[in-house]
Amino acid sequence: MPELMPAARTARESIFSVMSRLAAQHGAVNLGQGFPADPPPAFLLEAARGAVGHFDQYSPPAGLPALREALGADLHVNPQDIVVTCGATEALAALALSLYGPGDEVLMLEPVYDVYLPQARLAGATPVTVPMTLDDGGWAVDVNAVQAAVTGRTRALLLNTPHNPTGKVLSAAEQRDLVALARQHDLWIISDEVYDELSFTDEPVGLRSLAPERTFTVGSAGKRLEATGWRVGWVACPAGLAPQVVGVRQLASFCAPTPLQVAGAQALPRARQEGFYAQLREKYRVRKEWMVSGLRALGVTVHEPQGTYFLTAQHPAWDALSLVREGVAVIPGEAFYDQHDCPPGLFRVAFCKSQEDLEEALARLSRLA
Amino acid sequence: MPELMPAARTARESIFSVMSRLAAQHGAVNLGQGFPADPPPAFLLEAARGAVGHFDQYSPPAGLPALREALGADLHVNPQDIVVTCGATEALAALALSLYGPGDEVLMLEPVYDVYLPQARLAGATPVTVPMTLDDGGWAVDVNAVQAAVTGRTRALLLNTPHNPTGKVLSAAEQRDLVALARQHDLWIISDEVYDELSFTDEPVGLRSLAPERTFTVGSAGKRLEATGWRVGWVACPAGLAPQVVGVRQLASFCAPTPLQVAGAQALPRARQEGFYAQLREKYRVRKEWMVSGLRALGVTVHEPQGTYFLTAQHPAWDALSLVREGVAVIPGEAFYDQHDCPPGLFRVAFCKSQEDLEEALARLSRLA
Repeated sequence: MPELMPAARTARESIFSVMSRLAAQHGAVNLGQGFPADPPPAFLLEAARGAVGHFDQYSPPAGLPALREALGADLHVNPQDIVVTCGATEALAALALSLYGPGDEVLMLEPVYDVYLPQARLAGATPVTVPMTLDDGGWAVDVNAVQAAVTGRTRALLLNTPHNPTGKVLSAAEQRDLVALARQHDLWIISDEVYDELSFTDEPVGLRSLAPERTFTVGSAGKRLEATGWRVGWVACPAGLAPQVVGVRQLASFCAPTPLQVAGAQALPRARQEGFYAQLREKYRVRKEWMVSGLRALGVTVHEPQGTYFLTAQHPAWDALSLVREGVAVIPGEAFYDQHDCPPGLFRVAFCKSQEDLEEALARLSRLA
Repeated sequence: MPELMPAARTARESIFSVMSRLAAQHGAVNLGQGFPADPPPAFLLEAARGAVGHFDQYSPPAGLPALREALGADLHVNPQDIVVTCGATEALAALALSLYGPGDEVLMLEPVYDVYLPQARLAGATPVTVPMTLDDGGWAVDVNAVQAAVTGRTRALLLNTPHNPTGKVLSAAEQRDLVALARQHDLWIISDEVYDELSFTDEPVGLRSLAPERTFTVGSAGKRLEATGWRVGWVACPAGLAPQVVGVRQLASFCAPTPLQVAGAQALPRARQEGFYAQLREKYRVRKEWMVSGLRALGVTVHEPQGTYFLTAQHPAWDALSLVREGVAVIPGEAFYDQHDCPPGLFRVAFCKSQEDLEEALARLSRLA
């Protein structure tokens, strides 16, 4: 048989899938993969049930016009600059294939969301990571180190705020410095902001407002509305570039699921009007604080997150493979490191789970502490 | 700003989107884009309404286990060889990125479904087309011409049966000869069989049974169950290769829409058991015959299809842009030609529309005839 291409030859099962499988095998509480325990809001479900049977055929590759309008209003951007995708993963893939290719380098921060690396390689480019710093004040970006990593081949800066896995929200100063750097070296900025509504700080989220001419912002209805399996994501593009991104994404999957786009178009304005995101933030703020104090009480070093529904923590004697056998699935920190050393004993905990699951996980971990 | 990659720079709006837009502008009957006028079957809609609110989070990138089981039983393949995708378009994209790259050539037949060409180029490969022959007996494959187009760089043969746009179903002899050629030159076979249940002849559909070691078969719940916007497609891979294809497709969109996969898992066995496909075939056979005779009565040369819900036809004085202004949208034949001359006056008609629309289209065309 002919040889497969590198992307297929080097394919690995996603760490999130691996840990979910191991969690099921060992009957572990699954604090690994980042899907919420709670169902999506009733107004989203009703909208989808109503759309099924009425909006079942192809929609435009750029997205259903009603959803682009709703997103434009929500994000304060021109609806013509919005491209709807099959989840944020497809948005990131389409951008990788649109913005860089063989010989190009893409800068990203480490720990790094695992899909960014193989997506850059799929496009033929080389991902170059810069480690975030970690001290008692938590995770931070060393902008000088980012600056030092720029070469003549660097094409893009791939950022993520609020950041998975650390929960770090880029400060206003970090954003300003990174944008200045991108302008200085004429780099694209890809800003993965799928947790935009899950920030517990007053720092602004949204790099596009600082550099609208070069920033592609990725978002996700699945993350916002607790329906990670629905595959409705988007990119807000610099003015005039959406048709080019559409050209690539229409080759990737043609269009996003039509009835679920209809539901998103109805639910996104309602979520904003009815204060759904404020409730969501408060729910996860409570679970975060509960989990942070619970883990600290067991002697775990916790790096308190400023956003997302994840936290990172360290314990010198724990590793993820042992923990899952003991009944608690987490994601090993090494899964987020490719070119630098992972801090010892680092792991990611998803706290978008039920209060009962979080309590049971802490009870099981307390036997190991 | 940095330059975009070729896939984005050369992006063009899909001809199907263009013609649908023009149809709406001109109030034309839309016999262009291939989406059915009839709704999906009630048993599919009920299954989806029941799944929403219960299966809303990530599913495995390979597909929901229940759907892989249902497809394995339906297609008579091992469920482990099935990969579920966001529609057949994503299946074809993932295969392109898995099977060929820079310097490689991919053979396909012309007229060619428009997405095959840019997908091959997106992977860095060169699409090479061989024209189908056309005479009073209809469309045929000149296997000697395919043989002559093979070079040392040819990696794959991309076939489509039943064929869009012509409705041609590869004969058993053509299938046998093409498989022999692929074996002789050690080529992958990608067989796009999304219209597998819409064949009006007794010729077998399913190249995988002839060459299971090298054939990737692409299918679509959207085409089978008249829900083209649901984005649930699949690939049946040669034994052992599904994990590699999963590795690529998980970078493309991570997973297909979970609630719609649940609905597919319930509906596909039921469609088979309840004779839904036989009803579908009969419905479209009647519309086909009605449309073929209606067009012939207007002096149009119709190449009667053996499958799909499309037909190709020729009229020396008609072109698609004039027709849409006169109130009937079709797809111009040139949209399916890249490297060879399109037969004069060729256009594609989708007859998956309502009887009323087909009658109205014929009435409007009769004023031009």
